[in-house]
Amino acid sequence: MRSAIITIGDEILIGQVTDTNAVWISQQLNSIGVQVGEMVTVSDEAGQINATLDRYIGKYDLLIMTGGLGPTNDDITKQTLAAYFNSKMVTVQEVKDKISAYFKERGRSMIESNLLQAEVPEVCRVLMNNHGSAPGMWFEKDGTILISLPGVPYEMKGLMEDHVIPELISRNNVPHVVHRTIMTQGVPESYLAAMLRDWEKALPECVKLAYLPRPGIVRLRLTIVDKCAIDAEQILDVTIAKLLDIIPEHVFGYDDISLEESLGELLRDRGLTLASAESCTGGNIARMITSVPGSSSYYSGSVIAYENRIKSGVLGVNSQVIEDKGAVSREVVEQMARGVREVLGTDTAISTSGIAGPDGGSNEKPVGTTWICVQNGEESYAKVYRFGGTRERIIDQASYTALQLLRRLLLKNL
Amino acid sequence: MRSAIITIGDEILIGQVTDTNAVWISQQLNSIGVQVGEMVTVSDEAGQINATLDRYIGKYDLLIMTGGLGPTNDDITKQTLAAYFNSKMVTVQEVKDKISAYFKERGRSMIESNLLQAEVPEVCRVLMNNHGSAPGMWFEKDGTILISLPGVPYEMKGLMEDHVIPELISRNNVPHVVHRTIMTQGVPESYLAAMLRDWEKALPECVKLAYLPRPGIVRLRLTIVDKCAIDAEQILDVTIAKLLDIIPEHVFGYDDISLEESLGELLRDRGLTLASAESCTGGNIARMITSVPGSSSYYSGSVIAYENRIKSGVLGVNSQVIEDKGAVSREVVEQMARGVREVLGTDTAISTSGIAGPDGGSNEKPVGTTWICVQNGEESYAKVYRFGGTRERIIDQASYTALQLLRRLLLKNL
Repeated sequence: MRSAIITIGDEILIGQVTDTNAVWISQQLNSIGVQVGEMVTVSDEAGQINATLDRYIGKYDLLIMTGGLGPTNDDITKQTLAAYFNSKMVTVQEVKDKISAYFKERGRSMIESNLLQAEVPEVCRVLMNNHGSAPGMWFEKDGTILISLPGVPYEMKGLMEDHVIPELISRNNVPHVVHRTIMTQGVPESYLAAMLRDWEKALPECVKLAYLPRPGIVRLRLTIVDKCAIDAEQILDVTIAKLLDIIPEHVFGYDDISLEESLGELLRDRGLTLASAESCTGGNIARMITSVPGSSSYYSGSVIAYENRIKSGVLGVNSQVIEDKGAVSREVVEQMARGVREVLGTDTAISTSGIAGPDGGSNEKPVGTTWICVQNGEESYAKVYRFGGTRERIIDQASYTALQLLRRLLLKNL
Repeated sequence: MRSAIITIGDEILIGQVTDTNAVWISQQLNSIGVQVGEMVTVSDEAGQINATLDRYIGKYDLLIMTGGLGPTNDDITKQTLAAYFNSKMVTVQEVKDKISAYFKERGRSMIESNLLQAEVPEVCRVLMNNHGSAPGMWFEKDGTILISLPGVPYEMKGLMEDHVIPELISRNNVPHVVHRTIMTQGVPESYLAAMLRDWEKALPECVKLAYLPRPGIVRLRLTIVDKCAIDAEQILDVTIAKLLDIIPEHVFGYDDISLEESLGELLRDRGLTLASAESCTGGNIARMITSVPGSSSYYSGSVIAYENRIKSGVLGVNSQVIEDKGAVSREVVEQMARGVREVLGTDTAISTSGIAGPDGGSNEKPVGTTWICVQNGEESYAKVYRFGGTRERIIDQASYTALQLLRRLLLKNL
């Protein structure tokens, strides 16, 4: 099955928005063995949309189209598709009811444009949207499936996961594709590649390896395209076992589990509570931890001590130590971690103090210099890092490193 | 002048890499008045590249193509272009000398594939690459300019800035394009469109309007394509002034300023300091505020009181009130804001307490229910919201709403 992805939106063509939908969709399609042959972005203009459909229908088995389904006048995809398929518009009662219920629940009154969202071309099959009001639409013509989805990323993702992917899997008889993703933290991509060179050389021929870096994290994706699923799983098990022998301390999970979920599972399993004291990461660690549903069962809270006054006043860091050693020092992060454990009464703690930039660096402590401390009742571990990149990258790397350090402390793997 | 952007690379089609080149190029082209009509991504395959060129040459005035110029076997763009233009390959001495010098400087030995980088189709004009070894290539055919650039972002950007943009500006007599983006918070897209219906209807014909929603924010983009730049700016000034009469309280800035930057500017201008006390937003507000460089001059810190024990123990919220009214209540957010102002000694404070879900809701307080309080020395304003969507969406909306409430309190616009 071969596919193309069509993105509709002037905001992308003028460079105001990066098209992250297309990349996500191509990942999903590839993961179920659907090849993506082309991606194209066109403007919110009927002529361009029609020309693109003319070109692709009949050429590809599947077209996924996103964007232009909003309630405002600049969104014209639905009308254009109705005209393209010579179909009149009909109201879908189920969608209408859902929209009405949504507004009623929130005690808000509905306006006409909201109800227009319930209209679709008669010729399409409706895909119910559980995350918003614009439904997805499934068309078929000349052997091509055309699926139109909203451009809002979480609505598009919901429709893909709820409807599109499951249905494509059940229709699809492409070769079986098995993916495993190994999540690593703490080693940049090029170093990791060097550490894994021999392992990579010895990979069975059918196994494809990809390095997928993100800020602070590198994912290793192993892929087997094979009709024999049982063999593939076994081969991957053995391959991963060999990998774990080489970098046990850097792997924190599999298949896109996040580091914060992995740490949360560990804390919950051990019945431990956590607090954080953040300076340079400015709440990013707290945000990551609390992004996990149920995190309140192990996470008590945080003190963001952006000013030195807070470090001493709230966390009890000795102000003479701040003056002598500087806020970015081993002594200060250790006292911050101890302080937040005491003030919030938790079993474990994470603390950070660094220079996120772009200003504030010195020769001795350049931008990116970051002290991190992790503690439990018996142990305290502090280390200095020198992260590179923008302010955002430095904050991200410090946050990931801190979570991974606590994981390794708890696993006695430091 | 109308253009299309062609990206070549399998790594993009399998979703391994997000195409940030295309968005950057479209920003550059739009900024000099070159409209981008289409973006397309195709694989490293001669057939696909040829078909794309056939389609676009003669249709667009300008094609910018990136990728496929590397030294490895999977890069075939240069050979494909030579064949497409029926041109033999020639060695460019200047490029060859540059590559030799590069390796000599680094004391590394050169391999044959490095020198192949100095070969280009005879028919093209060479654009010297000051940031790498693969030169850019400038072709012309049937009234279309085709420029081939390497896919490595900083090499592509260097070639665009050093050669392509200056030359296009000097050749170009295209209409001037003027964009203005108005940033709004607090009204969902469909409501905003209803509030602005009359204003939208009365827009001058030359002004194009687009609604660009993000979680918690809606951007309004006004565009004029006009030969007369002075008129365009004036028309947009008047149009925006009329908009401000309708929704003064929801506009927080222009041209992609973030809400956290806008609030930061306000605090800095007034010489005020800020602290936050977060429950359901779990550090997201702190993270947003501290993402702005220099925020330490007005932001003191935060107490993330995820557990009720912290709300009373650290922030001094009356525990009897928590028991009587619940943690998600007006009284609690008010006491949290007052508490954090006192504990951290700041002029202003933001506090949040809500149910981010997916669990923890009740009939009386369903998931999404969120109390927010903003305070300065003289005033305290608290309000309850019922946000929809996933945990992530609820946290985002609560955070944006809180920042905007404080802005409005400071501007006496509540």
